Amino acid sequence: MLGVTMPIGQALDEFRSMQPGERGRGMRSRVVGVVGAGQLARMMAQAAIPLDISIVLLAANADDGAAQVVPDVIVGSPDDPEQLANLARRCDVMTFDHELVDPVLLAGLEASGHAVWPSSSSMALAQDKLRQRRELGEAGFPMPRWAPVDTVPEIEAFAGGTGWPIVLKASSGGYDGRGVWEVADREEAQGVWEGAEAAGTVLLAEQRLDLERELAVMVARTPSGEMAVYPATETVQRGGICHELRVPCRLDPGLVRQAEDAARAIAEAIGIVGIMAVEFFVASGSLFVNELAPRPHNSGHWTIEGATTSQFEQHLRAVLDLPLGDPTPTAGGIATINLLGRGDDFDPRRRLHHGLAVPGAHIHLYGKSPRQGRKVGHVTACGTTVQEAHRIATDAVQRLLGG
Amino acid sequence: MLGVTMPIGQALDEFRSMQPGERGRGMRSRVVGVVGAGQLARMMAQAAIPLDISIVLLAANADDGAAQVVPDVIVGSPDDPEQLANLARRCDVMTFDHELVDPVLLAGLEASGHAVWPSSSSMALAQDKLRQRRELGEAGFPMPRWAPVDTVPEIEAFAGGTGWPIVLKASSGGYDGRGVWEVADREEAQGVWEGAEAAGTVLLAEQRLDLERELAVMVARTPSGEMAVYPATETVQRGGICHELRVPCRLDPGLVRQAEDAARAIAEAIGIVGIMAVEFFVASGSLFVNELAPRPHNSGHWTIEGATTSQFEQHLRAVLDLPLGDPTPTAGGIATINLLGRGDDFDPRRRLHHGLAVPGAHIHLYGKSPRQGRKVGHVTACGTTVQEAHRIATDAVQRLLGG
Repeated sequence: MLGVTMPIGQALDEFRSMQPGERGRGMRSRVVGVVGAGQLARMMAQAAIPLDISIVLLAANADDGAAQVVPDVIVGSPDDPEQLANLARRCDVMTFDHELVDPVLLAGLEASGHAVWPSSSSMALAQDKLRQRRELGEAGFPMPRWAPVDTVPEIEAFAGGTGWPIVLKASSGGYDGRGVWEVADREEAQGVWEGAEAAGTVLLAEQRLDLERELAVMVARTPSGEMAVYPATETVQRGGICHELRVPCRLDPGLVRQAEDAARAIAEAIGIVGIMAVEFFVASGSLFVNELAPRPHNSGHWTIEGATTSQFEQHLRAVLDLPLGDPTPTAGGIATINLLGRGDDFDPRRRLHHGLAVPGAHIHLYGKSPRQGRKVGHVTACGTTVQEAHRIATDAVQRLLGG
Repeated sequence: MLGVTMPIGQALDEFRSMQPGERGRGMRSRVVGVVGAGQLARMMAQAAIPLDISIVLLAANADDGAAQVVPDVIVGSPDDPEQLANLARRCDVMTFDHELVDPVLLAGLEASGHAVWPSSSSMALAQDKLRQRRELGEAGFPMPRWAPVDTVPEIEAFAGGTGWPIVLKASSGGYDGRGVWEVADREEAQGVWEGAEAAGTVLLAEQRLDLERELAVMVARTPSGEMAVYPATETVQRGGICHELRVPCRLDPGLVRQAEDAARAIAEAIGIVGIMAVEFFVASGSLFVNELAPRPHNSGHWTIEGATTSQFEQHLRAVLDLPLGDPTPTAGGIATINLLGRGDDFDPRRRLHHGLAVPGAHIHLYGKSPRQGRKVGHVTACGTTVQEAHRIATDAVQRLLGG
């Protein structure tokens, strides 16, 4: 459908007129294949419509959030090499809704000449918190004290240096608070270690910081090396789950700039392609890198209404090596509040009309059933100040959640 | 998928807790059926995603702009009663991408209990410029001088009162400059009349105004009677085709207010449901109603980025009887420029990377091939002033159109 045919003479003229670095772009048919079909793929699909970019999904289930709104869906597992290859054949660039894809399979596709962004090595780094710590530490980025820990005595030795409590993390597979345990003493550490040992999970130990703030910076980079950095987002977390975003951050401007500079430097250092979230802790007035997520991210959802270019459009531009868009905020203050399932029968979809009664509230529902703690949507508001935006978003969320 | 099931006790509780006028809303499964699959349906589909509203299309062709991005498509003619009934059965509310649907068929669906918005009678009014003139004139809205004309002597008699040139219009079927002829004398009038006579087209004659400006006001109304009025848009037309939009208008604030008030009054008078464009002429310092289009409209495209609630989301809210959104502009000045096919082989899709290099330009492509004069996309920019926004949009359009 998007395949372009033009007379060969004109094609040659156009090709010759292109600037260096732009060759080939004009001829691209622009089909993006997305592995996974959750809300990130869903919001990518929404952003793809105005740019006439076609989306093909590899969805685990035919009724996944993004599969509800995209015509071209392959139903299959991201672990299935045949289905991944099938997706690769049907798109110009493969990208991701989540990190749970085997980098070895992706490297195979790259070796066959398929464009995969973020690359197999970026995906491998994203899946390995231990490697993130090692490589970012070696490159000099500020980190909490940490150590790989294989045994309980190693955990005790680490805690001997920092004092209890400490944080234990699974090196891979965690998200939304899963795979992270604060342990108060040897006994608790032993319990976590036994679970990890049984599951074959590699652990690392980290200094428990007294968090003053948590931040995330979204940064985009193209294969040509163009970069765009969004202003730092304050993320308000409870139980390891992001509840709220605030832009600008309540934080010393010097630290904010330091975070934005670090995100840019990390993106460049690891050669990321696409958009990436770099998460930071602020403790004792200092900045510490937490972790990387090489894809559109919850902490960037405010950009849909709150920035000139949304993170989803930016990601599509980046993986297609198109010029990046303007990441500037469109309002003085922006707030986003996540809608989390509550474990009862309540569904914000059923109360949409209540939420829509709040002027200025932008409601996003992900087409998911509201299981306990599951992110089923979010609400963004823009205002002159973050306080004003936060008040609007809170009002809408309360009405959506009801009773 | 969106069908909601809940325990009957809870459903009853929720039902009882609803405010008057809101009964039933919470239970609605929210599937909107759209007749037609052009760019308006395409942009409706984009707006439906975050609200988890499902779209079903009745598309004339499987590769129409909206059919490219919506999973649930019935391919069939809007003239086919069976296909219309099929669409009606599969949705909660039927609405439209265009006016070319037989109101008698729609009235039949309404009689069977289907929700059709705008209603069959609004659609009939939209298709009949003569009836628009008669009813709006009787209601006291300011109009150019006009008369129904069945014969060449009647045309001459009309021109005897206004002087030549005059404007002849087909009462139905015209758009984008088609169906409108400026005629300088009896001979030219005779030619138009013969063509109309051969085609069985009813003509009306209108006073030719010396246009100072053309405006459009988008107004939304729900079945419950809630209304929202967008600020008046200045439409820059060439050859009857809209080329540019500017918000705010370059016009006396008193006239702008008069237009906005008239649009609201017209929407109320005809009991429109959904969004509607009311087009106005400004001549000799006065306002004249031109015509009505009861659907999202080219003159409202600026609202996607330039208003808190886009006309497409507003239309969905209105036809579903959900609370209307805030129509306030998000910037001091907004400009939209249409991308029109040029009749050569050039396709703005092929030069997307050039257009995307302009910071702040929001590019919208409709998935259509660029035939001469055909609207294939638009570019919107927001700025502190319209001039600033216009400069950005113009820059992007020039790069998209190239050489």
